Amino acid sequence: MKKLILLAAALPSLAFAAPITQSPAQLRDAALEGDTVAWTMLEGLTTEVGQRLAGTEAEARARAWAVRELTRLGFANVHVEPFDMPVWVRGEEHAEILSPFPQSLVVTALGNSGASPASGVEAEVVAFETVAALEAAPESAVRGKIVFIDHHMAPTQDGSGYGQFGAPRRTGPSLASRKGAVGVVVRSIGTDHHRNPHTGVQSWAAGVQPIPAGALSVPDAEQLQRILSRGQPVRMRLTLTPRNIGTRQSGNVVAEVPGSDPAAGVIVIGGHLDSWDLGTGAIDNAAGVAITTAAAHRIMQAGQPRRTIRVVLFGAEEPGVFGGQAYFDRHHQGDNVVLVGESDFGADRVWRVNITLAPANAAVGDRVAALLAPLGIVRGTGAANAGADLGPWSRAGVAAIDLNQDGTRYFDYHHTPDDTLDKVDPVQLRQNVAAWTATIAAAADAPEAIERAGPPRAAR
Amino acid sequence: MKKLILLAAALPSLAFAAPITQSPAQLRDAALEGDTVAWTMLEGLTTEVGQRLAGTEAEARARAWAVRELTRLGFANVHVEPFDMPVWVRGEEHAEILSPFPQSLVVTALGNSGASPASGVEAEVVAFETVAALEAAPESAVRGKIVFIDHHMAPTQDGSGYGQFGAPRRTGPSLASRKGAVGVVVRSIGTDHHRNPHTGVQSWAAGVQPIPAGALSVPDAEQLQRILSRGQPVRMRLTLTPRNIGTRQSGNVVAEVPGSDPAAGVIVIGGHLDSWDLGTGAIDNAAGVAITTAAAHRIMQAGQPRRTIRVVLFGAEEPGVFGGQAYFDRHHQGDNVVLVGESDFGADRVWRVNITLAPANAAVGDRVAALLAPLGIVRGTGAANAGADLGPWSRAGVAAIDLNQDGTRYFDYHHTPDDTLDKVDPVQLRQNVAAWTATIAAAADAPEAIERAGPPRAAR
Repeated sequence: MKKLILLAAALPSLAFAAPITQSPAQLRDAALEGDTVAWTMLEGLTTEVGQRLAGTEAEARARAWAVRELTRLGFANVHVEPFDMPVWVRGEEHAEILSPFPQSLVVTALGNSGASPASGVEAEVVAFETVAALEAAPESAVRGKIVFIDHHMAPTQDGSGYGQFGAPRRTGPSLASRKGAVGVVVRSIGTDHHRNPHTGVQSWAAGVQPIPAGALSVPDAEQLQRILSRGQPVRMRLTLTPRNIGTRQSGNVVAEVPGSDPAAGVIVIGGHLDSWDLGTGAIDNAAGVAITTAAAHRIMQAGQPRRTIRVVLFGAEEPGVFGGQAYFDRHHQGDNVVLVGESDFGADRVWRVNITLAPANAAVGDRVAALLAPLGIVRGTGAANAGADLGPWSRAGVAAIDLNQDGTRYFDYHHTPDDTLDKVDPVQLRQNVAAWTATIAAAADAPEAIERAGPPRAAR
Repeated sequence: MKKLILLAAALPSLAFAAPITQSPAQLRDAALEGDTVAWTMLEGLTTEVGQRLAGTEAEARARAWAVRELTRLGFANVHVEPFDMPVWVRGEEHAEILSPFPQSLVVTALGNSGASPASGVEAEVVAFETVAALEAAPESAVRGKIVFIDHHMAPTQDGSGYGQFGAPRRTGPSLASRKGAVGVVVRSIGTDHHRNPHTGVQSWAAGVQPIPAGALSVPDAEQLQRILSRGQPVRMRLTLTPRNIGTRQSGNVVAEVPGSDPAAGVIVIGGHLDSWDLGTGAIDNAAGVAITTAAAHRIMQAGQPRRTIRVVLFGAEEPGVFGGQAYFDRHHQGDNVVLVGESDFGADRVWRVNITLAPANAAVGDRVAALLAPLGIVRGTGAANAGADLGPWSRAGVAAIDLNQDGTRYFDYHHTPDDTLDKVDPVQLRQNVAAWTATIAAAADAPEAIERAGPPRAAR
């Protein structure tokens, strides 16, 4: 049996010859029981490439690795679609309390952080419990100081805390700079208690002077709060020396399972290939790369679907969805993409499906939901967003399906050095592959036309 | 009532005036329900001093802090007993895989590590599953290489895995150097999966050339294993630049609850004040400092015990038990110490008591065990060792009691940056205080003589 599979992988044209005879439910159950493609890919990418910051040579090695693996797996039309992007790289990172209780704190620079001198910036710390409190503060309370912004994020299954409690990272630095701060540190946007800070992108508002902007690990943020609670002035030296190294090339890696009916349109799924530079990006997002590739591969092994299934492994998601935007810009006027969905929330079990289809396609959604129910997946009532990279398609009105993973522990590791292979549970990973396999198999062979879900809508 | 306690604290002579009327069980229950002294001390030491590497100015600040706190709490005879020691301090720390899969690994230097050049040492990695495998290897397999030593430590309640699986750190570096290795990295002696490496002391065997010796975090050790499993030669650059800065002063901080019967002897309890430099030493060992101080303080508040209770907060335990040895050397011929016990295994609940008393004192042990049973503490059958710092007394034949804490998660944090306040559960901390309070109250007021437990025995 193993031999046959290897043979089929080596000779994809054989596998494409006949329509799929196994039902989506059969494909789902086989994935749940025995998928090894996802783990092998996840283990391979995180081990043989490791961290892969967008626009760097490490991300280029990841693309070469992906092209090799996708080709080996028997996909058709494997290629890279390059694009250019601005690249920011990390430098030295230190935070020290100088008084009243001298000690080091663990800090990492946020994406696009400004640089301090090599010797750091020294100033008194002024603390704000929320971004709103910083917004309300007079400039005189902030000017010349290092701003610390706290928050109260707690774990949620749907990950909704990230949106609400991520404001200190996203908007805090610009606000602090505008009020004259010489530096800013935020409590890591995370839910763990380990001394691994959470990086993540932030963008300077128009006209704002970049300043050193970092995240303290959660234990360090709590330590700073305790130090501040003594009521004495607290002086900090913050050293962050990142650099903007100019425009570099990134790219999206594309692979296809060609459909038998070109008029039926293309289904685009995938994940992003780049990671932050602190960990090996196992959950963010080698997992999504592996899950969607494994699902498409399993369908390909079973025969030829009606619709083409296109797997896109996006470049440069982390610093600002450059790959997803480049892909949309390049393809949205020419390609007949009828359904999109990205996996980009780790590898814990899928607990909910959100489906956004045209009213005329309600039956497709019902069939998908029924296929997922045996995996313990509830049908949600919200709109599907298709993830950051495929969001432009969803917002343009293309039908979308989100397979929401359990996010309870996702923000313990997200964007930290701790995002490594050991955080992935192989059993839950297989459940993800099973859910994607069933969903995409059902959609790819749906006999009805998959229509646009609605009119274009604005990004949130 | 609060007012009265504060008054008693301010005027210790009042508290010492009358014998204790509350029973050890009553003192135990009050500690379990409402002790705040231990948490306040633990929070204070870890916040207001932070890390406190032995022999550095940070440890000196910790001594000053402890003298101030012990005095404020109303202890008698608060003083520092200084001693000299050799001091080793950390430098830069990097490990990089150069080929076949370039990437950074997280490493920290082991205590007394030799220094690499600033640009690191570069060599092929040779891996050994155990120290025994390294021992069995021919020199030709090791010479000029960087040795990696793995192990299979798993969590144990009694912490016994540390002894068996700690060999890569303790003896691996000397063995590797003797066989001509240019560097050595071990899998951290720990049971977690976070990218926080575990430091810890190791000593070079006589005549052995120090080489750079580090610990990889557990996820990084597993990553290196995966990289090695591909079968290609693996080249690493290891940069560790620690320094020996010569002889510096450390010291033990001593405080007493004077007993009413000097002839009945002294009970010595305590923890160690120094910590490794990576975390704030909350579990190792601000917890032990706080627990034993709180227990002695609670007894002092209740009245004057028959025997003097002496709390010793030892300096320089981590680099080689310098404080414990200095204390023994200074006092073992003059002082009538009748019972010893150290708390140095975190702050999780005490689950077992081991008691080593003279056969004639069996009743004392039985009374202590009965007092501890309501806290869910089982009576063990092993010998009490009294911890690293008081071990010399136990080995000299002095009676000893060990209150063993649950070590299941201790080695997740031990000697890592993650040893911070948030790892301590206040409820379990109080259970520790309750156990120590009951034990020491019963022993201090025991009407019988506490005899030597046995003849001197050798250190293991």
